[in-house]
Parts: sequence; structure tokens; C-alpha cells
Amino acid sequence: MKTKKVAIVGASGYSGEVLVQLLLQHPHAELVAVTSRQNAGQTLAQVFPKFASHPKSRTLRFTEPNAEVLAKQAEVVFLALPHGVAAEYAVPLVNAGCMVIDLSADFRLKSPELYKEFYTHEHPAPELLKKAVYGLPEFYRDEIKKSLLIASPGCYPTSILLPAIPLLKAGLIQPQGIIADSLSGVSGAGRKAEIDYLFCECNESVRPYGVPKHRHLSEIEEQLSLAAETPVTIQFTPHLIPVNRGILTTLYLNPTGKASADTIADCYAKAYANEPFVRLLEGKAFPDTKNVVGTNVCEIAWRLDPRTRRLIVMSAEDNLVKGASGQAVQSLNILSGWPETSGLV
Amino acid sequence: MKTKKVAIVGASGYSGEVLVQLLLQHPHAELVAVTSRQNAGQTLAQVFPKFASHPKSRTLRFTEPNAEVLAKQAEVVFLALPHGVAAEYAVPLVNAGCMVIDLSADFRLKSPELYKEFYTHEHPAPELLKKAVYGLPEFYRDEIKKSLLIASPGCYPTSILLPAIPLLKAGLIQPQGIIADSLSGVSGAGRKAEIDYLFCECNESVRPYGVPKHRHLSEIEEQLSLAAETPVTIQFTPHLIPVNRGILTTLYLNPTGKASADTIADCYAKAYANEPFVRLLEGKAFPDTKNVVGTNVCEIAWRLDPRTRRLIVMSAEDNLVKGASGQAVQSLNILSGWPETSGLV
Amino acid sequence: MKTKKVAIVGASGYSGEVLVQLLLQHPHAELVAVTSRQNAGQTLAQVFPKFASHPKSRTLRFTEPNAEVLAKQAEVVFLALPHGVAAEYAVPLVNAGCMVIDLSADFRLKSPELYKEFYTHEHPAPELLKKAVYGLPEFYRDEIKKSLLIASPGCYPTSILLPAIPLLKAGLIQPQGIIADSLSGVSGAGRKAEIDYLFCECNESVRPYGVPKHRHLSEIEEQLSLAAETPVTIQFTPHLIPVNRGILTTLYLNPTGKASADTIADCYAKAYANEPFVRLLEGKAFPDTKNVVGTNVCEIAWRLDPRTRRLIVMSAEDNLVKGASGQAVQSLNILSGWPETSGLV
Amino acid sequence: MKTKKVAIVGASGYSGEVLVQLLLQHPHAELVAVTSRQNAGQTLAQVFPKFASHPKSRTLRFTEPNAEVLAKQAEVVFLALPHGVAAEYAVPLVNAGCMVIDLSADFRLKSPELYKEFYTHEHPAPELLKKAVYGLPEFYRDEIKKSLLIASPGCYPTSILLPAIPLLKAGLIQPQGIIADSLSGVSGAGRKAEIDYLFCECNESVRPYGVPKHRHLSEIEEQLSLAAETPVTIQFTPHLIPVNRGILTTLYLNPTGKASADTIADCYAKAYANEPFVRLLEGKAFPDTKNVVGTNVCEIAWRLDPRTRRLIVMSAEDNLVKGASGQAVQSLNILSGWPETSGLV
Repeated sequence: MKTKKVAIVGASGYSGEVLVQLLLQHPHAELVAVTSRQNAGQTLAQVFPKFASHPKSRTLRFTEPNAEVLAKQAEVVFLALPHGVAAEYAVPLVNAGCMVIDLSADFRLKSPELYKEFYTHEHPAPELLKKAVYGLPEFYRDEIKKSLLIASPGCYPTSILLPAIPLLKAGLIQPQGIIADSLSGVSGAGRKAEIDYLFCECNESVRPYGVPKHRHLSEIEEQLSLAAETPVTIQFTPHLIPVNRGILTTLYLNPTGKASADTIADCYAKAYANEPFVRLLEGKAFPDTKNVVGTNVCEIAWRLDPRTRRLIVMSAEDNLVKGASGQAVQSLNILSGWPETSGLV
Repeated sequence: MKTKKVAIVGASGYSGEVLVQLLLQHPHAELVAVTSRQNAGQTLAQVFPKFASHPKSRTLRFTEPNAEVLAKQAEVVFLALPHGVAAEYAVPLVNAGCMVIDLSADFRLKSPELYKEFYTHEHPAPELLKKAVYGLPEFYRDEIKKSLLIASPGCYPTSILLPAIPLLKAGLIQPQGIIADSLSGVSGAGRKAEIDYLFCECNESVRPYGVPKHRHLSEIEEQLSLAAETPVTIQFTPHLIPVNRGILTTLYLNPTGKASADTIADCYAKAYANEPFVRLLEGKAFPDTKNVVGTNVCEIAWRLDPRTRRLIVMSAEDNLVKGASGQAVQSLNILSGWPETSGLV
Repeated sequence: MKTKKVAIVGASGYSGEVLVQLLLQHPHAELVAVTSRQNAGQTLAQVFPKFASHPKSRTLRFTEPNAEVLAKQAEVVFLALPHGVAAEYAVPLVNAGCMVIDLSADFRLKSPELYKEFYTHEHPAPELLKKAVYGLPEFYRDEIKKSLLIASPGCYPTSILLPAIPLLKAGLIQPQGIIADSLSGVSGAGRKAEIDYLFCECNESVRPYGVPKHRHLSEIEEQLSLAAETPVTIQFTPHLIPVNRGILTTLYLNPTGKASADTIADCYAKAYANEPFVRLLEGKAFPDTKNVVGTNVCEIAWRLDPRTRRLIVMSAEDNLVKGASGQAVQSLNILSGWPETSGLV
Repeated sequence: MKTKKVAIVGASGYSGEVLVQLLLQHPHAELVAVTSRQNAGQTLAQVFPKFASHPKSRTLRFTEPNAEVLAKQAEVVFLALPHGVAAEYAVPLVNAGCMVIDLSADFRLKSPELYKEFYTHEHPAPELLKKAVYGLPEFYRDEIKKSLLIASPGCYPTSILLPAIPLLKAGLIQPQGIIADSLSGVSGAGRKAEIDYLFCECNESVRPYGVPKHRHLSEIEEQLSLAAETPVTIQFTPHLIPVNRGILTTLYLNPTGKASADTIADCYAKAYANEPFVRLLEGKAFPDTKNVVGTNVCEIAWRLDPRTRRLIVMSAEDNLVKGASGQAVQSLNILSGWPETSGLV
């Protein structure tokens, strides 16, 4: 199978680190460049001792990010950068004909106005928004194949969209009144030196944050609205819990008249029975982050509550894999024509 | 101040242990007996090395539980036993004139039918249900003063009732459509040798359980119905998270026309401004279990979401203190005529 | 490359689970049977939801362990059983011509007397002891190739022997006065329903145990004595720390006159520069369990202390991989003539 | 009993926070001032929500530290500052007649040369060193009573000195060849925004650091030398483990001819039987940090190993209480003539 040269801009954060891991082990991708301002000059082995057993870790050195240079080195460039910064690299890379898989929020929204509302600054490259595809493979596989710019979804959005979209499309839930209550591991906050994320501040602690208007709402609502074909406004409450990795989301949904145990089971089976990275739980099983951490799998289970006539759907994923870097590699596999599971478990 | 002799039946579990700690340090209560089948014969210091510095820990020995003996030794007996078992001791103790503070679910419900529905066996002592008072001091202070049998509330119910009852009573939220999403530390499962609660099964794991019909629903709904003066059915989703102690609850509520930022703030201030163990958070603060663990305090914060017109209320408590043993000691203080904060922080 | 059919007896414990994981992904081994008394009849997917995405997890069912049946199904059988029990299966399997890789302590010692001293019962199959090879590939690679019975080393021993043996063989440390201070994650205690290993008993806790005569001393001392060609008695202190996986060992060693920064560096380089699963740390780096968990790598770093003239060597490994199942697969690779790193990272 | 006005300089770190907690609850001390550059102007309740239930938390505001002002407000000032900075406040405060209890390393050593060797800068106030008393109450009780400047011991030193000094003084161990292997919770690193102490860097990680010459060696060796009446050089290896609070130290000691199970037991009983904050464990018990966290107690257990003829002594303490703020309050109690256990458990 034809290999592709790939590069990672911003490879020293948590999702960058997982990208390095996945791409070092990938059977078809060849990691040719990693950039990081603070680690420029150091080898992969020096920055990430855990990769030191890989032969390439001794020779591949972090460089200062430079779009011009990267465009010559790599066919595909992953951007693992903060929003706002990602666009600075996406523009010249796309113009130079590189494929870009952006893990930031910069190209996830169709509307620059919505971007400004939620990210509090003008969109840095509104002209590129139209070219971007939302990289959720389960729903945009065909578009991903044809795009030069993939906006890989956020971790919370993935954990909400995968369980919700099939139900909305099938008309089994009402588009209004959706509540998503999410619990995230601390790596979701990034590798940033802030007091709030010190071990002693997070360990033996559980707390909500960003209530009621977290930034991820914008892409969640835009995607749900597309699925429902009507504007959707949801309630979203993120919580920080003391695990390194993993998101557990509980969705509270109002079933329509068409919803029954059978139609819901059918809907999910139709959507996901052949999806390699969505696991529908059977019987009495509940999702558990420990069963998905380190994998690209999103687990889903649901219960129809006869007492309240509500549908409860629960999902679990690894925020750094299916919620970030694994999903980005899944897009790489798709756009490269490789088996979609290449290099992923 | 007059002291009281107190005893603990079932003192070797997690809530029993916290009761021991609180009562050893209590300025007015004198701990005279602790029982435990498996530890009978051992001193407090042997079973709980952490209490070994207290002089009484060397002399007070666990005994086999015996209601007749306990009734002679103690004026107040705490029952920290599984449901079903607690009633076996409550009946003879109450008959012997002891005051009983029961931490189990046996006397929390008014209705033996509801008990049977949720606990799957006949109520063991239905005649006593009428004498029991639900030991939530913030709402039943006067009844607690006069009762011989206090049914101390469950951990999840406390975290839900404290934030919800004032709103219901004031007509600021609709009694229907209430959702309670709760996150509990592992001590809530008790000190039981089960694979599910081993360190390696809980650490780096987050999972829902007991969806959609957890036993605690019965007492939550009964109390909410009393507050709303109409039958209330709620959605309740508990999750297990890797902390030792602490419950974080997020409530999703539908405000009525009377609800506004001002009326809600007034309602809570009226209910809790003078309550020693409810802390209303101000400004941008969110509840955090690490700020309440080890104390009898329940923290509450709320946000009115203009986008969804929903009211989000968040609470945090220590499941073993305000959610169990601390609340039981609060009841002890009330029925003994001591300052309500005696021995509690 | 020729594949081999393999089976796991006792596949529901923590090392059994990691064996399942490694063998499901192994490029040359075909997992044909897993046994477990308590899970007999269930599929791999039912017992281990995290493996549910592997196609074989839906068809491979746990069976009751039966040596006769296993001998017909598999060419190599892994025993992940308690000591004493493992021998019951090893004897008939070896007699039936199966290769056996035993993860228990039953065949690690040369001397049945030593076994009795440390395991407090007669050795169950002393005649087999002579046929067994101690499965530490870095030192017994040639013997592993030729043996029918591999006694895979314990987790603590591996973390001590890898750093100590080269120094002893090179005469750079004195064989007497060795101290090994080890910190182990809780999975080392096995998946057993015991109060001591509940989440709340281990979390926020650090404690020594088994001082001064832990069972693993027997195999550590036997192997060190063979390396030193003189009887070696060491001091070994294990501690339990709140992580799932990982062992960190600190060795306190007395250098001989031949020891210097150069001779020690040379000694380790000679022993391990070409070993795929031993990583010598450079510069100021210290071993960290988070850099080896999930891999078959043992990290080693050392410091010569000019103040005390002592040599401090520190090692880190994953107790379930290099300390158990990964090392067993490494032996499988060797005896099967496959690349030694097959299926391992 | 006469109360004393006390102040805390640097009250926003972890040991400052525990000092605030202890002094708010202290029966005889009156907390009149807390300083913190970054939190100046905020109330205690704003900075530490967990203290918000204490009435003083709403009125007591952090101020900029100013020695002149503090000297007028308080009779005793606690310094919870980095080394080097503490001396800047100690000098004017002592000169103004204040009693100073310094939790930094600035006044723990007798020798300014040793200070320079280990802290790599000139001692900022060598003339004050002579006035300072090492605030380890179990050995310097009388001196503490008479001093204006208490240098409260470090966390690691306390966990080593308490178990080692009685043995050295009694001649039961050789002064040479002492090894101290210590495991510390992450709060020992302070509330500093550094990547190394982020939740995800410490959780599921165990690592040594500062090998072989940690700064605390200086005060440990100076105190051991005083006890042994001969210069003592020790081996000390600290490790970072994923708990918030707690230090577990394992000492490897060489017994002298006088040492036996009886003489060691007698030695410890004589030293500590009447000490309120040292707990000698009996029988098969081992120290466990979870039994001391939140208390001012140091647990000690020991084993004579007949195989190696070595004495193993293990200790556990809360690094922020007996290892820092609790011990400082113990000194406050002593120098104020209050019961030594006032405000401490």
C-alpha cells in the first residue's frame, strides 16, 4: 500500500503525544516531522522517554513550526494547536497543496459568526471554512475522502454526536430538550502549567465547570441541527474528574412517538453494526471509560425509562483517541484510501 | 451541658467508621459501645489504627450486637447496618425506650408498599414507619426534636433534596421533568469485598450504574412530592468516580414563570442563609467535592441558562458526613438540645 | 512464519487479561482456548468488554480447565494460576508434550527445599524442577529455546534482577549488602475480592508489607547467587502504592574497587545496548512507571554517590507486562523462533 | 488560658493552607493576619472556599506581606515561604520582638557553609542562625520554650529523625551506613504551576528524584550527627507518588551489638510512650499514610531481620501536618505554655 509522509505541528501536548504514538506505529504513514516551539532541537526520545524504544525516536527532532518547510516535507500535516493559532498554519499549508487535519476548533463550524460568538475573536480564515469537512467519519466518510482540510471534532462533541445523531436522523427523539452531562479526565485541559490542573487540585476532587455555555456547544449544536434539519439548542454540563483519560457522557432525551425499544435498537444497529469504532453494549452492560481508554472505540448503551418516558443514552470514549488523535488518524486512513482501522485499535 | 451515652451498631463499615470518629471527638456525647460481628473482641485501636491516639481506643472493644444489652448501655443508638437488618435492632431498641438514629433505608419511607417495590422484600416493621422522622434537619428540625426514631437520609437524596426542596416549596420550578445526575465516590459502595470495588476496577474508570431505577429514587421522590404537594417522578443517574469520598450532583430543572435570578437567590437565601451546614456559593464559584470532604457542609451553586431557559443547580457534599454520619450526629445534637454544630465542622 | 496454537489457563485474573490482550494481537500466535472456573461458558467479550471489538472475542468462550483437552487444542499453554495450582496442570501438559509457560512461582526455584521454606508446602512436582528454565530472556535466551517448561519470573524479581545481574557478573558490586526497595501498583495483588485491595483502602494510601521475608526473595536470591557464583542474601522491602500498574525499584549497592562511572556504563551497555526491552536512561533522566506501563520495557538509571560511595540503581517496569505476561510472550517468541519483539511494544 | 495573636506570611501555599485551617480552629490562638502577594485583597473564604463556613473567613483578608505591620498585629508570625525569602521577614520580625516560627529551610542548619553548599546561595542572615532552635518538639522541647525563632523541620527530615534519633542516642545502631528511602505525596512539591506536577504527569506515575543529593540531606545529617555525637552521612532517596498528602519512609539500619528486639522496643518506648504525636505500632501492623493524614501523628514500626542482621524501621506522617504546619503549631503550643496538643489531633 502506498505510504504517506505526515507531520505534526504542536506535538508536545497531550493530543500531540498520542498522535506521535499512533503515527510511529502506523503501518502506512511515515512520520517525517514534529514541531514544538519549546522543544525545538530535542529528539522524540528526549521529550517523550516512553517512545525511546522506537528507532525513529533517536533521530527525529522537534523543529520550530514553519509552514513552508512542512509543505515540502509532508503530504499530510496534523495541527495539534490552540484555536486561533491552528488557522495560521492551515492557510499556507492548504494553499501549498498539503492535506491538513486540524485538531483545533478553527474549522469545525460552518459559520464565522458562531465562531466569533463562542471563541470571542474574529475567525482567522473565514474563506477556508467552506472547504473544511467535519471529520466525524461515521457521518462524513465520503466528504473526508475528497477534502484537503479536515476539522477533526472535539472530544465532548464526539461523545455526544455519536449517540445522538442516529436518533435525530431517524426521528426517534425530539430535537429540543436535549441534555448532555459529561465527565472528562484531566488530559482534556491540555498540558498547561496552571494551578487548577495540578495533581493536588484535581485528585480527590469532582467539579463542574463552563456552565452553562461551554465553547464546544457551538459545534455540537451545529451538527445536531444538521442532523435534525432544524435548529437545536442543548444543555451541556462538563465536569472534571480525577482520571487521566476518558469521557463519560449521559444524554437525557425525549423520545418521539416512533421510539420503542425495538426501533431504537434497530436505529443504532443500522447506524453502527458495521462501524469498527462504535461498540453497542448489550444486556445489562454500562459504558466504562476503562474499557475504551487507549482505543479508538466509543461505547454506547441506552435505557428507555418507563417511569419518566425518557431515553437515557450513555457513551464512553478516550478523549485523546476517539475524542482527538485516533479520530484524526481515522480520517487520515480514509483520505489515504487505507483500511480505516490501520494503526488503530 | 448534659452528656448522653451513645452506641453504634455496625461500626466497622465506612459510615460506622466516620461515626466513631465524630463521636470520639464529640464534646457532649460519650461513646460507650461499638458492635461488629466480624471484629467482636477487638479494640477500636486494633480495628482502626488511625484512632489509636484517642485514649478510649485502647479500652473500647467491639462486641456482638445485642439490642437488650445496648438498650441498657446507651441512651441513643446509631444503626449503621444494611437495610432489612437495621429494623431488627430498631424495633427492640425503640420498644426499650432508646432513641434510635438509623442510617439505613429502613425507616425513610412513609409507605411500606413503596419500600417493597424498591427494596424487593416486605417491610420488616411497618408499624414503626409512622413513628419515624426523616432526619433532614434543614426541613424536619422540629420533628427530630420530638422523635424516638430518626431515619437519617441517604447520601444521594441529601445532595438532591437540599438544592431542590426550597425551589419546589417556593413554586420556582415545575415539579415534573426534574433530572438529577450524580457522581459518587467509591466509599458509597461500602466496605464490601467485591471485585467491582477493587482499586484496579475503580481507578482510571468512570461509569454509570443503577440506571434507570436506583433504590434511592423512592425516598427522593417521596420527599420531593411532600415539598411540591403533588406526586413527583424524577430521573436519577448515579455514576461511580474514582475518589474516596464526595458526591457531586447536577440538577436540571424547569423554572416556572416566577423564577428569576432574584427570586431564586432570595429563595435560597431565605432557606439557607442561617443554616450552618449549607453553603451558598457566590459569583463564579462552582461546587467542588474537595471543599466539603471531611465536613458536614453541602455546597450549592446555580445558573439560569438564558439559551435553554433551564435552571442548573449543582451541589457537593461528603457522602459519609452530610450524606450519612455527620447528618446523623446533627440529628443527635438536635434531639439532645445541644448546639446543632457540636462536634461537627 | 509458522503460527502456533496457544491457550491460557486462568485467563480471568489481571495477568491472564494482559495475556489475552497480547495474544489476540499477536501476529504469529493463535489463541485457541481460555479457561476460568468462574467464567466458564462466557465469551471473551462478555468477561472483558474492552476486547469486544476483536472478532474472536465473540466466539472464544471460557471453558473449565482440563489438561487433557488443552493438550489436544494447543501447542503452548500459559498458566496464569496461583502457586501450587499451576503445577497440577503443568505436569500432565508437559507429559503430553505441550510447551508450558508458567507465570506462577511453582517452577522458578531449583531447590524444592527453598520452595517449601518460602511457600510453606511441599513442592507439588519436584521432578519437573530440573526441566524448568527461568524465563528471563536477557540471561536465559538459549535455554528458553530448548525447554518445554518455562518458569516466567515474578514482577519484583524482574525489576531487581535486570539491573543487578550484569553488575554482579562483572564484579562491579559486592554480592553482600544488597538492598532492594520496591513500590508496586495494586494489580500486583491480583483480582481478588479482599478488603485490603478495595479502592478506598488503597487510594490515598502508601504502605510497606511482607517485611522482612517476602516470598519473592527466594527466586531473587537464587538468581543473584547464580550470577555472583556465591550465596547472596538481600534485603527486600515491597510497598503498595495507589497506581494500577507499575513497579519502581531502588537498589542500594556497594561498589567494588573496579566500579567507576565508566566501568558501570560499559557493563550496562554491554549487557543491554542490544536488548529490545531494556532501556538505559541517559543524562539526568529517572525511571518513571508512566513511561513503561503498557510496554514490555524495563527502564534503568543509576547514580554513583560520591558522598556515600554507594551505587544507586533505579528500575521501572509494568508489573503485568515485563513483570508477567509480556515477558511470558517474549519467551513464547523465543521458543517459537519468531522475532523476539513479535506482538510486544 | 491566655490567647496569642498570630499571623501567617505566605498563607496561600499548601502548608499555609493547613496552617490557616489549624489556627482557625485553635482554642487559644487568634489568627489576625494572613499575607499573600497574589491574593492580597481577597478574603479567606474567597481563596479557600472550604473555610467559608468559619465566621472569620468572611472578614479576614489577605494583605501584602509587610514585616513592620505584622510585628504590630501579631505576637507570633509563621513564615510559610520559600527558603531565602523567609529570612527577609524573619530578621525584621525577630528584631521587632516577634516570635517567629519559620517553616522554610532558612534557619534549620547551624552552619552557614552547609547552607550555601545545599542551597547554592549565601545564607541571608547568618547572625540569626545561632538564635534559632530546630523545632522538633520531641527532642528540643525545652529550647523551643525559650526561643524567639523556631526553625520548623522539613517533612522528609521529620519522617527520618523521629525513628532514627532514639536509636542513635541509645547506641543501638551504627551511625554509618544509614539509608532512608522515602515516598512523598505531591503536595510536598508545593502549589506551583509546573508541568511536572500536573495531574496527568503524577497520576499513574511513580518516580525517584533528587538522587543522590537532595537538599534535605543537610538538616537530616546535621541532626543525626548531633544525636550520634559523630559526623553522619546518609543515603537518602525521595520518590514522588500519586497521593495528595503523606510520607512513608523506610530506614535501613545496621544494629550494634547492643541491639535486640528487647532493647529496641525499650528504646522506643522510653523515647515515645508519652509522646502525644508519635505512635509505636504493635504486632504485625505496618505504617500506612492513610492512618495519619490529617493528623499530627507519626507512626513507627520496626523489624529486625534475622537473615540480614539489619534493622528496618518504617514511618508514616502527613507531610503537611507533622511534616510542616502541625509541627509548627505544636511549637506554638509549647512556647505559649498551652497544652501541647491544643488544636491538634
